[in-house]
Amino acid sequence: MSKENIVVLGAGSFGTTLANVLCINGYPVKLWSKSQNVANDINQNHRNSKYLGDNSLSRNLRAETDINVAVNNSDYILWAIPTQAIRSVLSEYIDKLNHDHYHINVAKGIESSSKKRVSELFEEFGIDLNHFALLAGPSHAEEVVAKQATAMSSISLNHNLAKKVQEFFVTDFLRIYTNTDLVGSEMAGAFKNVVAIACGICDGFGLGDNAKSALVARSISELSGLVDYFGGSRETLSGLTGVGDLIATCFSKHSRNRHVGEQLGKGKDIQTVLSEMVMVAEGVKTCEAFHKIQAELPIEMPIVEATYQIMYEGQSVSDMIQGLMTRAAKDEF
Amino acid sequence: MSKENIVVLGAGSFGTTLANVLCINGYPVKLWSKSQNVANDINQNHRNSKYLGDNSLSRNLRAETDINVAVNNSDYILWAIPTQAIRSVLSEYIDKLNHDHYHINVAKGIESSSKKRVSELFEEFGIDLNHFALLAGPSHAEEVVAKQATAMSSISLNHNLAKKVQEFFVTDFLRIYTNTDLVGSEMAGAFKNVVAIACGICDGFGLGDNAKSALVARSISELSGLVDYFGGSRETLSGLTGVGDLIATCFSKHSRNRHVGEQLGKGKDIQTVLSEMVMVAEGVKTCEAFHKIQAELPIEMPIVEATYQIMYEGQSVSDMIQGLMTRAAKDEF
Repeated sequence: MSKENIVVLGAGSFGTTLANVLCINGYPVKLWSKSQNVANDINQNHRNSKYLGDNSLSRNLRAETDINVAVNNSDYILWAIPTQAIRSVLSEYIDKLNHDHYHINVAKGIESSSKKRVSELFEEFGIDLNHFALLAGPSHAEEVVAKQATAMSSISLNHNLAKKVQEFFVTDFLRIYTNTDLVGSEMAGAFKNVVAIACGICDGFGLGDNAKSALVARSISELSGLVDYFGGSRETLSGLTGVGDLIATCFSKHSRNRHVGEQLGKGKDIQTVLSEMVMVAEGVKTCEAFHKIQAELPIEMPIVEATYQIMYEGQSVSDMIQGLMTRAAKDEF
Repeated sequence: MSKENIVVLGAGSFGTTLANVLCINGYPVKLWSKSQNVANDINQNHRNSKYLGDNSLSRNLRAETDINVAVNNSDYILWAIPTQAIRSVLSEYIDKLNHDHYHINVAKGIESSSKKRVSELFEEFGIDLNHFALLAGPSHAEEVVAKQATAMSSISLNHNLAKKVQEFFVTDFLRIYTNTDLVGSEMAGAFKNVVAIACGICDGFGLGDNAKSALVARSISELSGLVDYFGGSRETLSGLTGVGDLIATCFSKHSRNRHVGEQLGKGKDIQTVLSEMVMVAEGVKTCEAFHKIQAELPIEMPIVEATYQIMYEGQSVSDMIQGLMTRAAKDEF
């Protein structure tokens, strides 16, 4: 039986890495890159220097700059582009897609303009959620491409699709679990990028592991309220896509969201920080989305709010930390 | 009104640090040290070079090597000695204690010989749990003594006692919450020291943040089963004494348990590792205790078991990791 055709949209670090895993597993893959330079680098040098340094990629991995050619004949579309860019790609190419396509998303964010999770965005474009899966968990591309042991979760309301995605990616260095809690996983994935910025602020400001660990613990309480409200499962929060991904992002040198926070904590302003980065930090716009969500709902999100105030309202980091530490002593729960 | 007299038993890094906080807050404190050298260093040089390097301590902090003199006239006893040593100190000095004493424990372990939590050990010696509190959370002594922002939890079945302990320690760099879940907090505190060894093994073996984050997430699932069985609260696990302390220990350069694991991961045997250390790593004996608990109860503890096999049965690290990564793909929950 011939293997499924898969197209990966987005040749950033994670898209390239996942396309490479699919190649290793023998799937016919096309990787769509907007950049001719990146595509040439992949096709000629078998690497993606811009996003993945010197790591060598499968010689079978082919990049393509024409999205129509890339998507043609595909059965599965893996979306590895930033959350805020998904709408424009969907709008432009929705006519080329058909109802048989299956979609796998790996972006972790909330669309700022609509406050929608990524699956809600796909629904808006008429895509049945039985054709939608999320692949998530603690998975820095830099480690996966180097074949370092990693565990992820494949999440879909359609268990057969979740199993299929599991089959695509499982290798001796990549262990894939399945899960059905799309709401909890999407919320947790988006939220952790905001917390990573907050943790980075602590790092940049010179706070230690005690403070960061307390912040992460408090963030889980904040996320629990959010997930309860939207009908996700708390169990998810203690799993790979919850606390697993959260700590990978908050404590790792690889996280670009933590990096943004670290620069803010050192006193740079957000525009300067973003202008110095090659990659997109999803947490920046997603923080804005959560700020809007909080404003409309009976949910308290003090960590989101503090991060928002620092990024968007120019609040000083030291005032914010001072305020958090000197609130009245109280019960933990 | 005169402030309460507090004696701190154990002049290791954490005992010294907490005694110093009490001094800063104006309490009359005596710090009991077994070592005359450490006591001299504290009394003459206002530091504890053996355990806390160059950090300067309050000039009011007095160390005492005679435990009888130290305990005399005290109202509160703070126990900052290793879990496995508590029984012998209790046995020797129980006659000197009276029913009015309040006990605050900061040790995080399970007694290996009896499989008891520390509070159960105190109960065995006739101490009413209304006179017992635990002070816990992500609090590396190296950061607290340097007055870096830290949040902890004061846990007691006696809410008034929990509030009193909160009052003792709250400062502008130390934020103290209260909580009543003694079982959950004690289990989580002991368990995290074992997980820290497992994480250290990953570090020493060269695994990355992805693998460690997955391990920590899976460990929360393992701990949840344990806490459910013994009647603790799952809420605690997502708080300061649960995931907060767990990540502080698993990801920090300060953790001695993580250090033990790191040396094991590099191929050293446990006897060599322990012989090279100044401080006690609670997780080593506590792992043995959990191994015994697991053997008698219908609870699966794969991370405890793997760590036990590596430390006590000479199982190879690579075989263990290979085994964990190549199990059949399955549902996450």
